[in-house]
Amino acid sequence: MATIKVPPSVPSPAEDAEQLQKAFAGWGANEGLIISILAHRNAAQRKVIRRMYAERYGEDLLKALDKELSGDFERSVLLWTLDPAERDAFLSNEATKKSTSSSWLPMEIACTRSSMELFMVKQAYHARYKKSLEEDVAYHTAGDIRKLLVPLVSTFRYEGPEVNMTLARFEAKILHEKIQEKAYNHDELIRIVTTRSKAQLTATLIHYNKEFGNAINKDLKADPNDEFLKLLRSAIKCLTCPEKHFEKVLRLAMNKLGTDEWALTRVVTTRAEVDMQQIKEQYHKRNGVSLDRAIANETSGDYKKMLLALVGPEDA
Amino acid sequence: MATIKVPPSVPSPAEDAEQLQKAFAGWGANEGLIISILAHRNAAQRKVIRRMYAERYGEDLLKALDKELSGDFERSVLLWTLDPAERDAFLSNEATKKSTSSSWLPMEIACTRSSMELFMVKQAYHARYKKSLEEDVAYHTAGDIRKLLVPLVSTFRYEGPEVNMTLARFEAKILHEKIQEKAYNHDELIRIVTTRSKAQLTATLIHYNKEFGNAINKDLKADPNDEFLKLLRSAIKCLTCPEKHFEKVLRLAMNKLGTDEWALTRVVTTRAEVDMQQIKEQYHKRNGVSLDRAIANETSGDYKKMLLALVGPEDA
Repeated sequence: MATIKVPPSVPSPAEDAEQLQKAFAGWGANEGLIISILAHRNAAQRKVIRRMYAERYGEDLLKALDKELSGDFERSVLLWTLDPAERDAFLSNEATKKSTSSSWLPMEIACTRSSMELFMVKQAYHARYKKSLEEDVAYHTAGDIRKLLVPLVSTFRYEGPEVNMTLARFEAKILHEKIQEKAYNHDELIRIVTTRSKAQLTATLIHYNKEFGNAINKDLKADPNDEFLKLLRSAIKCLTCPEKHFEKVLRLAMNKLGTDEWALTRVVTTRAEVDMQQIKEQYHKRNGVSLDRAIANETSGDYKKMLLALVGPEDA
Repeated sequence: MATIKVPPSVPSPAEDAEQLQKAFAGWGANEGLIISILAHRNAAQRKVIRRMYAERYGEDLLKALDKELSGDFERSVLLWTLDPAERDAFLSNEATKKSTSSSWLPMEIACTRSSMELFMVKQAYHARYKKSLEEDVAYHTAGDIRKLLVPLVSTFRYEGPEVNMTLARFEAKILHEKIQEKAYNHDELIRIVTTRSKAQLTATLIHYNKEFGNAINKDLKADPNDEFLKLLRSAIKCLTCPEKHFEKVLRLAMNKLGTDEWALTRVVTTRAEVDMQQIKEQYHKRNGVSLDRAIANETSGDYKKMLLALVGPEDA
């Protein structure tokens, strides 16, 4: 469930565009006005506002925002304003250029979006970067990380609810055998995780837990600092319980000495319209404090206002 | 270029459906009438006829054809009547269930269709088989064949004309190094073949030929009977000059003692509306006989009539 609040009666896109243009006029932008408009419009509405703005003022709204704003606030507004598929393409491209520790970002996108959403990310990637997401991910990775990451990003998973229980038992056994042998990068293990539908994989992992006594991610913690195992555990979490993955990313982003704004902004802007409600519940349960309070403590100024507008107040 | 001939003035889909229904009435079908309609309608027209037939007569046209026809003729008519994406999904699914020697069929489909066409095959696969093409291909293969085939089938390749010449030189060198080392299944070699756009790969291979003196496929002939190398060479051919691949499939299908109807029917029905003209030219050049004459010598009856209607007479 989404957490953004769209008012029951929304001004026309033309009015919104005009108000935004006013917010940019004069010396210094009117950040409050920008937030009051953009943070309270859904993806379809923001898209029309952006088109309307370009038609009326001859400039891409994103460019205008880029000129007027700065720092973490700017990044949060820009990411939020982007069309979801474009945003994911942008984030993935940015990640492939960073150090290997960001190599899990395309994993997060591939495993938490629907198959059709992922396909639209790939189309947006073609259009913007004149190459494919797959080739960039493959080019910038190597070894086991590549072996797992490239198929995760490539597969067009089936999304129906059908589950083959015989297969689930059979593949749970394969997973257990390979983990027992510490063959974590085995072809069969990677095949199962990267190609099965989420419903089928979930059935397999439930059976794994029942039959072999542990959740698979517990058995995959042999070496907690091994990068490949971290990626594998995160992928399994993203595929089967994404809210837990995002809770953890937020927790780590705010538990540090110095907030990790890159991660915080990403999770808030990409999930506010999808499953932020579930993430908030998970966060409160795990940390004993509500997510909006945690964010309020860790951030300040317009950036704080923007994130809180997207996350919304605690409902409980 | 296509070889099928659609008459300048086509009857309405309702009339075509009615004529087909007449062709099925009575004892024994009127095969000539069936060919005269279906073999001379394009994919969009056949789709409407099929819908119209179902609406009027309460039965899927494919089912009616299945009941009335038999043997190679039936298979050619059924494959031809299917929507191209459905047809490719059907052929791929059939291949995954066969022996490993058919493992190259999903390769042919992945490498000779456009990225968007391949995506539509994947959607059709989901709809029909309630699972993904990727998971079936991965499940039914192993080892090096799987290592090459799964990414070939999975990637959504970029299709623009842009070529990075620095990258082409760099990757031609990688390919040459790996081939010199006989590391044919090396991650980097597979990455380049499975993720680069066709334009980029073509530039890389032209540079390879110029710089190292041989076409890459010549250097990949170390062991002509090695299944992996065969698949790799075919994939490269499909990606860079599909008409040569199809010419070879047709040549082998008709050079044998006993025609390989499975291959012959597949190539004719899947290419008649795409690039059969180029394949015919390639065939004539390579074999000194026109494709339609070769087909006429190898086949008979309604099957022969159907194939010749799709391939058309020699233009030269």
